[in-house]
Amino acid sequence: MDHDQNYMRMAIEMAKATVGQTSPNPSVAAVVVRDNQVVGMGIHVKAGEPHAEVHALKMAGEKADGADIYVTLEPCSHYGQTPPCAQAVIDAGIKRTIIASHDPNPKVSGRGVRMMKTAGIEVKTAVLKEEADELNRSFFHFIQTQHPYVRLKSAISMDGKIATSTGESQWITGEEARLDGHRYRHQSAAILVGINTVMMDNPKLTTRLEGGGKHPVRIVLDTKLRIPISSQLVQDTTALTWIFTGSDITEEQLAPFEEFSHVEIIKLEKRQIEVDAVLRYLGERKITSLLIEGGATIADAFVRAGCVNEVVTYMAPKLIGGKEALTSVAGKGISSLKNVEDFQFVSTERIGEDLKIVSIKKEG
Amino acid sequence: MDHDQNYMRMAIEMAKATVGQTSPNPSVAAVVVRDNQVVGMGIHVKAGEPHAEVHALKMAGEKADGADIYVTLEPCSHYGQTPPCAQAVIDAGIKRTIIASHDPNPKVSGRGVRMMKTAGIEVKTAVLKEEADELNRSFFHFIQTQHPYVRLKSAISMDGKIATSTGESQWITGEEARLDGHRYRHQSAAILVGINTVMMDNPKLTTRLEGGGKHPVRIVLDTKLRIPISSQLVQDTTALTWIFTGSDITEEQLAPFEEFSHVEIIKLEKRQIEVDAVLRYLGERKITSLLIEGGATIADAFVRAGCVNEVVTYMAPKLIGGKEALTSVAGKGISSLKNVEDFQFVSTERIGEDLKIVSIKKEG
Repeated sequence: MDHDQNYMRMAIEMAKATVGQTSPNPSVAAVVVRDNQVVGMGIHVKAGEPHAEVHALKMAGEKADGADIYVTLEPCSHYGQTPPCAQAVIDAGIKRTIIASHDPNPKVSGRGVRMMKTAGIEVKTAVLKEEADELNRSFFHFIQTQHPYVRLKSAISMDGKIATSTGESQWITGEEARLDGHRYRHQSAAILVGINTVMMDNPKLTTRLEGGGKHPVRIVLDTKLRIPISSQLVQDTTALTWIFTGSDITEEQLAPFEEFSHVEIIKLEKRQIEVDAVLRYLGERKITSLLIEGGATIADAFVRAGCVNEVVTYMAPKLIGGKEALTSVAGKGISSLKNVEDFQFVSTERIGEDLKIVSIKKEG
Repeated sequence: MDHDQNYMRMAIEMAKATVGQTSPNPSVAAVVVRDNQVVGMGIHVKAGEPHAEVHALKMAGEKADGADIYVTLEPCSHYGQTPPCAQAVIDAGIKRTIIASHDPNPKVSGRGVRMMKTAGIEVKTAVLKEEADELNRSFFHFIQTQHPYVRLKSAISMDGKIATSTGESQWITGEEARLDGHRYRHQSAAILVGINTVMMDNPKLTTRLEGGGKHPVRIVLDTKLRIPISSQLVQDTTALTWIFTGSDITEEQLAPFEEFSHVEIIKLEKRQIEVDAVLRYLGERKITSLLIEGGATIADAFVRAGCVNEVVTYMAPKLIGGKEALTSVAGKGISSLKNVEDFQFVSTERIGEDLKIVSIKKEG
């Protein structure tokens, strides 16, 4: 591990700590180094607030003059909610810029680098690029497709069951795994369930982590607007609730929801809800990442639409059996193996007694 | 890692190489060390042939006098097919015996150690015991219960499916995983499938490994003796075939099988086949380990009987979906989670694109 990688690793670790809180912006960190001493550090805390480079350069003050800056993502070159960071780097007198990820945004990609090079700054790119890219996988996907990054989370037995044949499902996995699962709620811009899950479990879908956490927007796919006014998603005001319905909903049906300002009902154009229409709408609303938690029929709809980007599976060391026992992805399913999409396993980890298995969609 | 552990690790590695070929005996290796030089090594090659200690002491010859011997399993003290190894160790003039596993056989346990101690040999036990125990897990289970160690092997998608909703199942996992699976056939004394698997797939159930391999006894559970004479299990003479039936089978039904000397038909006492009766019979026939490869209903019968000791799951990075798609354990299933047995994960490993997950039944 060389000198540049060491500082970049530190920056990546800093950026990691902000995953989920910067949406719709990426997680970014910057480190300013002069004469092998760290003189400035910064992270992007929240959308609308200063970028990581700005914080780091401010901390470094005059020491930034002639220093190196390590940034996990190419500094921006355009005037958005903040002035371009590439310009700030130039103005501070930085001598050398080290970058991990390229910006996937066509408005920015390569232009920040060119601005700095033109100003005489030495620029080194792609240092620990892979690790840094991983950090912003959902943001990159969002920028490139205008759809949220979809993560499917489930808790199964070793034979793929999420419940017994009589419907008993609490709890298949252990407490540690369930707590770990809440981290994904914290990191996701929105969480989605089907109306059947609401009817059966009446979930709250908020993030329950020690020390709090960010709550995702709670989304329900509910073609006929069957959700009870008494349900937690309607009554609980901790987080926003968006209910997608088909086109057949009347004003009369909508009226009882009007008093709940945290509840929004989104009537789609077609009678049936289509995965693609939901994702397109969410993209327009700047939802960069979506967590699907249930149920098996909803999961199947996203799988068949080819819209699952990542699969997080908590597997309990149990065999439940039963032809009638529900599995994590049910519905119609994909009938021919040649139409089944390939994923690739990226990690496996023991969480308490359970196993956590993460895979992402295979590119190309 | 100390001196004793180093030599014991070597012995364990040697014993590992013989797993599956020594049945119904355990896998054992011995190393003789004098003045920090290895002067003898031995393994137990095959039931009926000399034990590991005998080979190692023979190789050491006179150098065994005053030497240390490392044995992965407590030397035996009884006259079986070979004279007691504890006596051979004493006769060779060994000064110190280092042992990993205790012998689980009540005829031997602790007696070998006592014999050697009485003869003035220093004995150290339980060195790398856990690793050595793992090697002979199935043998220990067999000795203690008189039932074979049952290993359930399946190849599933991330949502637990072994086929699509239309029944397509070849192939969910990749070639590397399938090849790895054949190692379990080599290591098992017998392999078991249900009659439906025979009817649908007409499998050969032999071990196909580069460089050959030992074939397990092929077992079919076939209550009504529906197996076709033309099936590979009847026609192919590479390995033995044992067919379990219920009590309702007539002499007329049995007659066509008489000409096949490798085929044996075992008529059980009850009309229906019970898992326990099968395992008891196999134990009497010295089948120490049993591999269950299909199908889902057979797996369910063993799971519900609480007779699965180890689960080997090959998971492909795919989502298939489908309420009607078959899972690895189907049948009636266990209806209440409180009746579901706990296993524990012992390893996860990437095999090609797939994941191999091994768990064993939790004790106590």
